[in-house]
Amino acid sequence: MASSGDHASNEIALEFQKKVLSRPMTEVRMMANAVRALAIDGVQKANSGHPGMPMGMADVATVLWTKFMKYDAADPHWADRDRFILSAGHGSMLLYSLLHLTGYENMSIEDLKNFRQLGSHTAGHPEREEHPAIEMTTGPLGQGISTATGFALAEKMLAARFGKSLVDHRTWVIASDGDMMEGVSHEACAIAGHLALNKICVLYDDNSISIDGSTEIAMTDDVVRRFIGYGWAAKRIDGHDPVAIEEAIKWAMRNRKPTLIACKTIIGFGAPTKAGTSGTHGSPLGNDEAAAAKALLGWTAPPFVVPEEVLTPWRAAGARGEGARRAWLKRLAGSNRRAEFDAAMASELPAAYSEAMDALRAKIAETKPNLATRVASQMALDAIVPVVPEMVGGSADLTPSNNTFVKSMGTCLPGDYSGRYIHFGVREHGMGTTLNGLALHGGLIPYGGTFFIFSDYCRPAIRLAALMRARSIFVLTHDSIGLGEDGPTHQPVEHLASFRAMPNVLVMRPGDAMETAECWDVAMHHKDGPVLMVLSRQNMPTLPRDHGAENLSARGGYVVIGAKHQRKATLIATGSEVAIAVQAHEMLAKEGIDVTVSSVPSFELFDKQDAGYREEVLGEAPRIGIEAAVGYGWDRYLGDNGTFIGMHSFGASAPYQKLYQHFGITAEAVVAAVKAKL
Amino acid sequence: MASSGDHASNEIALEFQKKVLSRPMTEVRMMANAVRALAIDGVQKANSGHPGMPMGMADVATVLWTKFMKYDAADPHWADRDRFILSAGHGSMLLYSLLHLTGYENMSIEDLKNFRQLGSHTAGHPEREEHPAIEMTTGPLGQGISTATGFALAEKMLAARFGKSLVDHRTWVIASDGDMMEGVSHEACAIAGHLALNKICVLYDDNSISIDGSTEIAMTDDVVRRFIGYGWAAKRIDGHDPVAIEEAIKWAMRNRKPTLIACKTIIGFGAPTKAGTSGTHGSPLGNDEAAAAKALLGWTAPPFVVPEEVLTPWRAAGARGEGARRAWLKRLAGSNRRAEFDAAMASELPAAYSEAMDALRAKIAETKPNLATRVASQMALDAIVPVVPEMVGGSADLTPSNNTFVKSMGTCLPGDYSGRYIHFGVREHGMGTTLNGLALHGGLIPYGGTFFIFSDYCRPAIRLAALMRARSIFVLTHDSIGLGEDGPTHQPVEHLASFRAMPNVLVMRPGDAMETAECWDVAMHHKDGPVLMVLSRQNMPTLPRDHGAENLSARGGYVVIGAKHQRKATLIATGSEVAIAVQAHEMLAKEGIDVTVSSVPSFELFDKQDAGYREEVLGEAPRIGIEAAVGYGWDRYLGDNGTFIGMHSFGASAPYQKLYQHFGITAEAVVAAVKAKL
Repeated sequence: MASSGDHASNEIALEFQKKVLSRPMTEVRMMANAVRALAIDGVQKANSGHPGMPMGMADVATVLWTKFMKYDAADPHWADRDRFILSAGHGSMLLYSLLHLTGYENMSIEDLKNFRQLGSHTAGHPEREEHPAIEMTTGPLGQGISTATGFALAEKMLAARFGKSLVDHRTWVIASDGDMMEGVSHEACAIAGHLALNKICVLYDDNSISIDGSTEIAMTDDVVRRFIGYGWAAKRIDGHDPVAIEEAIKWAMRNRKPTLIACKTIIGFGAPTKAGTSGTHGSPLGNDEAAAAKALLGWTAPPFVVPEEVLTPWRAAGARGEGARRAWLKRLAGSNRRAEFDAAMASELPAAYSEAMDALRAKIAETKPNLATRVASQMALDAIVPVVPEMVGGSADLTPSNNTFVKSMGTCLPGDYSGRYIHFGVREHGMGTTLNGLALHGGLIPYGGTFFIFSDYCRPAIRLAALMRARSIFVLTHDSIGLGEDGPTHQPVEHLASFRAMPNVLVMRPGDAMETAECWDVAMHHKDGPVLMVLSRQNMPTLPRDHGAENLSARGGYVVIGAKHQRKATLIATGSEVAIAVQAHEMLAKEGIDVTVSSVPSFELFDKQDAGYREEVLGEAPRIGIEAAVGYGWDRYLGDNGTFIGMHSFGASAPYQKLYQHFGITAEAVVAAVKAKL
Repeated sequence: MASSGDHASNEIALEFQKKVLSRPMTEVRMMANAVRALAIDGVQKANSGHPGMPMGMADVATVLWTKFMKYDAADPHWADRDRFILSAGHGSMLLYSLLHLTGYENMSIEDLKNFRQLGSHTAGHPEREEHPAIEMTTGPLGQGISTATGFALAEKMLAARFGKSLVDHRTWVIASDGDMMEGVSHEACAIAGHLALNKICVLYDDNSISIDGSTEIAMTDDVVRRFIGYGWAAKRIDGHDPVAIEEAIKWAMRNRKPTLIACKTIIGFGAPTKAGTSGTHGSPLGNDEAAAAKALLGWTAPPFVVPEEVLTPWRAAGARGEGARRAWLKRLAGSNRRAEFDAAMASELPAAYSEAMDALRAKIAETKPNLATRVASQMALDAIVPVVPEMVGGSADLTPSNNTFVKSMGTCLPGDYSGRYIHFGVREHGMGTTLNGLALHGGLIPYGGTFFIFSDYCRPAIRLAALMRARSIFVLTHDSIGLGEDGPTHQPVEHLASFRAMPNVLVMRPGDAMETAECWDVAMHHKDGPVLMVLSRQNMPTLPRDHGAENLSARGGYVVIGAKHQRKATLIATGSEVAIAVQAHEMLAKEGIDVTVSSVPSFELFDKQDAGYREEVLGEAPRIGIEAAVGYGWDRYLGDNGTFIGMHSFGASAPYQKLYQHFGITAEAVVAAVKAKL
């Protein structure tokens, strides 16, 4: 490795460690040592993992979990619990140890012994689906601290709706140097500061060590100054001094701004030789250092054993919140908002929703508008948002282009969270993490808009939503060269393929106003993952299809126009290109060439249909695929004898009609492709 | 739109505008008005574009381009010119107007009239390939200001190598609120501050307006305070006061830190009613407002006409640098480093390179090591870096995992840029933009490492590299479930597909040490776009293939083991899965089943081969594709009768051998798939 600075920081750390250990033993340190010992043991047994962070942050976490955080280990689903986010997800043994010590179900010593093994609850990084007390999946740095903005905003919005007697809790984050360096933390923490989300408290593990060595080799920015610039309150403390930790947390709880507590800690605290070095970050300590660390800490129990005198106060801490929870249940039971609150938390759609959707469909069927799908999406939102109070939305500074604002929503403001529209600023990534937090918190159905091209900027958040099955809805307009003059920097060509390849993501690219309404209807019922609504800038006609009650888009693909007699080809298109297929159909019909036009707004939904249905839509005749995007991935539908008409390069800057001509995505090209197959 | 705050800011802006216009006319304002008039005209004629920013920043740009910036319009290729980056690329008419006024070739009035038309040099956003004076493509916000870190670092590194007499220039950036909000600006500007890149000066268009309205609705963070936190010097000025602008630029040039000058400006300066509103940002002013703006500015010339008395001083400014350029040419001609300098700027590989590569190949052929490809990549770097002084590299805080450091490189430090290794910190996006800047500057061949999964975090930079054809090399290790215990947050499954779908990107996933060396050899010769080296964490054997002099990987795919008699199937694999195919081949051979094993390290290179060669590699027998990733996109090779063995979901946390078993990516599964075809 290059000059790591480890040596100097190791010396300083060992000096600091000596000083801390010379202080009289406290109950906090004894309890924290249980966390350290379990973290050491879990990582040693797996022979893989990150002991350094749990050892360093054990004191801070112990103070938080034993004195301040509101939770009841008996019920991880309690809606008014404080949320705890381990942004530094590599320190997962910290969280697993805390859950075990405080007495959560399904986090036994056996579970800790199975750390990082197939099928365990104790994955390498905390996985939301593995345990109900894991509020979110973390590990990709920056995501936890940034998703906290969404959790905390959800609390504010729900408190504005239901009042403090039902909603009054905090969001706690443990974050690392890596979280601070990631750009997403800038975006989301600036949003949190702007919106004055004072119930976020970030406990920053300021341990001065990253994988390459001392943070001095790469990270010399002043984190405290930066956060003050965001409108946060921020201070530095000794992260091994229980009194200082306690005072700082009290300060945070009193504060009217979001708070950052930079806790000066020693990574791998307790390790006699490796403390304060990157050597403790991502590898087991080794048997000798592990044993010596326990000795230095005064921990004499065998591996994976927590002595009764330490476990007892921990279990008591885990039950500390029982009274608060029972009092809350009583308030909920006595509330006249109870049914509404329960429905919101279950994300049940009201009866008025179906009525609004039916009315929208009827209107489109009657008027057959010629609209951009982004405008059709606005129509859908205008119908849905007023009748679904859980819907909250916003845009990354493209409101007039994304068509995401509904008049009755009101704007979410610092200090007044009754408005449902959020101005995220030019912060796609921060928007993505905020949407995820809003979705994971429960009680809200969030959506956010940007240009489809800028999905690249929030891709890590979309992936994490997919992994966590968070129902964040992304409204992605300007979906192809059809946006015209802004040119190739703004024209997605590979983005459809890139998201179709991502598991658990529902990508929908509707081809007219009716499909747009249908796709929104699918999105509103889709609870187990993110949805991408991929929408056009340019207008397109309503398709000449059956406009009855069935949601044809929900099948992912369907026949728009069937061949009259014998199908000579199937034209398969999505979004704005379905209209080109329809136009080609007309031209071919004039020449007596009989073809079918199929629309495939969603590959994922279509792939779930039975083989017979899929075969009907795709047909046995030669298949022509048409999409203003690269063809990567289309072969699955086109087969060995198919032809793809689309993009083979980045786009260009010109009026969009010229671009369609220039890149050969035209009805004429489709006609020629069909004829070449005859 | 939601509450925009436009109204209040409009009033304040009009008041400020009145004050500015009441000041006596200066030559700067007159010259700046030429920029404003051309920007208005270009956008009006295209009926599309962004007049607000050029009108607001015209005074700042005029002072910079007429008094300080070092350039000679007669030679945009002058190696020691200052670099100018329009990070707020939507204001492209500002740059085009400046290039026209200062007298660059291929930027005539006709070009300005063709703004945003197909095939013009004047695309909607500045496109690097359209004009040599466009240093980089901009438009996706955050990229320009962040790529500046790379440009400025290149200058420092080359100055350290060649001395100030040959390399001594600055990097100027015009950036917007959007640039400041994007997270990538945090990462890259923190790097610039850490490395004390004092020759960057960012002129920040602090106009308080974004698309959704006043920045107050979303952006209340203190930019100046934040940049001071990064180790920059930062101050605020009146962006319409030529004297203040001049003083501030002088201050920046004296400073020992990178500098940010926040210029308080009025978006759409001159527009009598729309100034200071988002209405001037992304739409033409309209004929009436355009005419009224010119009247208010005192601009009487017809559209697209610049009066002689204004053009003359502009052209003189464009020739200001001629003397400096001639003096530099003389110094270069007289330098004993001239040949070396020219070779570096042309990125010519030295003769020693081929020798080193040959020796590496011979060593691998002889020792047939069992290595992770990330370790094989380290071997390649150990061979290449010492003999190619243009190679500079680093890692986003994963040096020991990415295997990117070569001992002889030395570390690049603040104030001492002679070391060639850069610690980027946990800043993948900032690393990506820095690599792009290093590559675009010329004279360097940059590479940077992170985990493959975190390519998501720098995807916008990779896309821009592809669009600009910048030769940034990304070393992406831990490429599949093969990384094991860190689990699904760290295991790429969709990333290969997502980058294969992106135009102009060369993705290479070698399958052993020899292929790794070959892929590095391809990368070293690949000058027209980014290269992704996708590498394993886990070991794999050297493949039983021809180890002669031919670079088989350069063909993208090749036959590793040919069928002996009659090919019953072709096993097609990449990376670590080629070894599985070889193992399956052995098992099948024992049963007398004759199959071919083909390795396809690069789809892009393979697709460029002639049909005959491709057919030979893929064969006519049934094809089995094997890759520890999703199969999206594989159908192109497997055809209607193929079988794909790979991932169908996200991964899991466990030792990697267990994961390969769990997900059914095994030689046994391949054997079964072959038998099912017989």
